Amino acid sequence: MQTTSLANKQWIYVKRPSGRIANEHYELRQSEMSDDLAANEVLFQAKYISVDPYMRIQQHESNTWEEPHPLGAVQRAGAVGVVVASKSERWQEGDWALGYTGWQLYSKCHGGDLQKLNPDSAPVTTALGVLGMPGRTAWFGLMEASPKPGETVLVSGAAGAVGSLVVQFAKRAGCRVFGIAGGAAKCDFLMKRLHLDGAIDYRAFSKTEDLSEEIQRQTKGVDVYFDNVGGWITDAVIPRIKKHARIIICGAISQYDGGLDRPEQGPRFLHHLLYQRATIQGILARDYNHRMDEMTAIVAPWVSNKEIVFEEAIVEGFEKLPDALNSLFDGKHTGKVLVRV
Amino acid sequence: MQTTSLANKQWIYVKRPSGRIANEHYELRQSEMSDDLAANEVLFQAKYISVDPYMRIQQHESNTWEEPHPLGAVQRAGAVGVVVASKSERWQEGDWALGYTGWQLYSKCHGGDLQKLNPDSAPVTTALGVLGMPGRTAWFGLMEASPKPGETVLVSGAAGAVGSLVVQFAKRAGCRVFGIAGGAAKCDFLMKRLHLDGAIDYRAFSKTEDLSEEIQRQTKGVDVYFDNVGGWITDAVIPRIKKHARIIICGAISQYDGGLDRPEQGPRFLHHLLYQRATIQGILARDYNHRMDEMTAIVAPWVSNKEIVFEEAIVEGFEKLPDALNSLFDGKHTGKVLVRV
Repeated sequence: MQTTSLANKQWIYVKRPSGRIANEHYELRQSEMSDDLAANEVLFQAKYISVDPYMRIQQHESNTWEEPHPLGAVQRAGAVGVVVASKSERWQEGDWALGYTGWQLYSKCHGGDLQKLNPDSAPVTTALGVLGMPGRTAWFGLMEASPKPGETVLVSGAAGAVGSLVVQFAKRAGCRVFGIAGGAAKCDFLMKRLHLDGAIDYRAFSKTEDLSEEIQRQTKGVDVYFDNVGGWITDAVIPRIKKHARIIICGAISQYDGGLDRPEQGPRFLHHLLYQRATIQGILARDYNHRMDEMTAIVAPWVSNKEIVFEEAIVEGFEKLPDALNSLFDGKHTGKVLVRV
Repeated sequence: MQTTSLANKQWIYVKRPSGRIANEHYELRQSEMSDDLAANEVLFQAKYISVDPYMRIQQHESNTWEEPHPLGAVQRAGAVGVVVASKSERWQEGDWALGYTGWQLYSKCHGGDLQKLNPDSAPVTTALGVLGMPGRTAWFGLMEASPKPGETVLVSGAAGAVGSLVVQFAKRAGCRVFGIAGGAAKCDFLMKRLHLDGAIDYRAFSKTEDLSEEIQRQTKGVDVYFDNVGGWITDAVIPRIKKHARIIICGAISQYDGGLDRPEQGPRFLHHLLYQRATIQGILARDYNHRMDEMTAIVAPWVSNKEIVFEEAIVEGFEKLPDALNSLFDGKHTGKVLVRV
């Protein structure tokens, strides 16, 4: 059997960043890859590769939820692509699949490590968004807070991959829903496309107290706070929680540029939890992996029926992966950021 | 019917403190009180009056869980005493009772506002301690964390009115139990009288990192943290929580001297909750008032059988009430502080 050689590209994570990541923390490696496969293996070609804030957490030396991302290895990431060769009974050439194959064009995987996608039932990129990790985070994270009709839900990072889904799920739960986002364009998106009850542009404020007052003015108090960002935005929210408020910590994106190893200072706020008998709960998407069917049964029909907005920001070009990851921390994009390769 | 005149004393709360309270924030008022009663009224004479950290929270102008304590009124507090006259069918002269009658020697109450105590079943002062508000806080607060046998429970303020009960309840739940307290005498109390698995004297450390390392060394990681103190002690604990840890915020006594209106800065820590999928929950004793029977059924027999240590620090003299309240913030006493009047 003849083998063909494929021109592979990989982004290798080579140096731990202390602040922002830059190209120096990665090495772009080009190599030839043969397409010969062992039994049960498939050759997977990535078409869309994900950049997600959690990647930056894993780059910290300490203070992460597991061993830090190893140096000298392909940057881990989810990818959607096609099977280009298969020695697995489960896979045919041309099948669309979701894999955790990282920042590389081609990879060989065990057939059992990919998940089949049906491009007729939903756009394949939704497997990295509303029907994938961000959707799972949004759905199960919000459900942990048991939102009730009429309650007030406030979401930070509300125009982001997770936040833009949380606000829509909360609307469907009958809540009054407010979003915090950076800039007028994102707030417009929240109001006009996602039909929120209010949007707060944090960039219009320079002091925590002023942002906090605007939050109070609009929301009249918060029952559920879904936090993607942490930092001073969260400082502004916490004094505005109502009795029995539930705070879900999904991310702390404002802190990822070095702040996890050497945390910033912020005002102490635990006493507010006491007065309000409130809870804070940290969540990670992986804890709900085994429950994806529950979510898909509910959310997939909303996707098919176009009852839910799942905005995507597609960056073109494999070479742009580090830049695209970096862009998450500038809040440059609305919705889920993907790199088309 | 002849009336008698009683020499009453009251501590009136007259000025909001910005830091520590002192005598200037109170006025000692002496007055004559007649013993004539309306139907269903009783005349109650306090014998033991409580001082509790929550009183200091209520003195803040803002950031409390309700309207601040009114100025010009008797300082609110629980008291144990005797009925000295009664026009209520429920009460006889000489009956022991628990009332929320405040810092005053005598008061007239509706018979329904007092709670009968049986001095034969438990010392009457336990109604202000292990079988009262502090016990309720300790019991239901710990139960919110669902401690499991073999789990590691860490308690701050562990030699205090609430903490010294939490550690004993946690031992009975089969946990490994560690206490943080100030000074060698309190740590001795924790080890020799309460038989904890370890005691950490925070006063032996000047840096958060060093205290944190000692916590890790002794506990090997914390499943349940019951926090009475907040501040830098809590900063030292949070990086040591284990996966699915539960943190109960019962108090933040280190912050009460002004820190609630103008919060101190401390390191941001919410990211730890994310990595560990941990929860923080604020609790208040009053939320469990209606469930006292549940607790009494379990804890009262332990009290009768002397299976539980309920240390009391009795301060002598009505005039000492403000000083006694202040002493809570110095950590001067072990166990429940009461003033005998």
